[in-house]
Amino acid sequence: MHKLLVLYPPPVDPAAFSAHYENQHLPLVRQLPGLLGWRYSLRVHAEPESPYFAVFEAEFADADAYAAAMASPQGVAVREDVPNYATGGALVLDYPVAEA
Amino acid sequence: MHKLLVLYPPPVDPAAFSAHYENQHLPLVRQLPGLLGWRYSLRVHAEPESPYFAVFEAEFADADAYAAAMASPQGVAVREDVPNYATGGALVLDYPVAEA
Repeated sequence: MHKLLVLYPPPVDPAAFSAHYENQHLPLVRQLPGLLGWRYSLRVHAEPESPYFAVFEAEFADADAYAAAMASPQGVAVREDVPNYATGGALVLDYPVAEA
Repeated sequence: MHKLLVLYPPPVDPAAFSAHYENQHLPLVRQLPGLLGWRYSLRVHAEPESPYFAVFEAEFADADAYAAAMASPQGVAVREDVPNYATGGALVLDYPVAEA
């Protein structure tokens, strides 16, 4: 399994981020080919303070499936939408999973 | 569902981190009460460069189960082991999951 993990530092306008994210961005995410599962949170906690406002994670069968999804028209549409809400930036990580 | 996400910046000695992590730390993690699932990666990729060397993620039923796990003797043992390998520090995030 290969994972995508996106970490969002605090945006300028958290309410605008959340509305755009759930109403505009996630519908684009759902169309990614090869997406096996995904989930997100707009309530990220850390002590003393979280450097990230939101997190998104998704699973793909392997690195090739992840790369194909990102290179697809749907992947391009997802990436092109990010600047529309992620005013604090976005850290995009991916990794092969080692499991128990 | 409630998730724990631990992000490790690059350690001083990556090989020593990896050996301690897999041979000493993960056996402690496995003993956490209420742990529903977990996975990790020592091969975290980002462009142009990943600020994190390793990632660990785990699932608990809810925030109470997560808090109970962390407060348990097994949770204390897990936390007390972190400085033994995480020479670059560790960012510990937790969040309630919103799912598709």
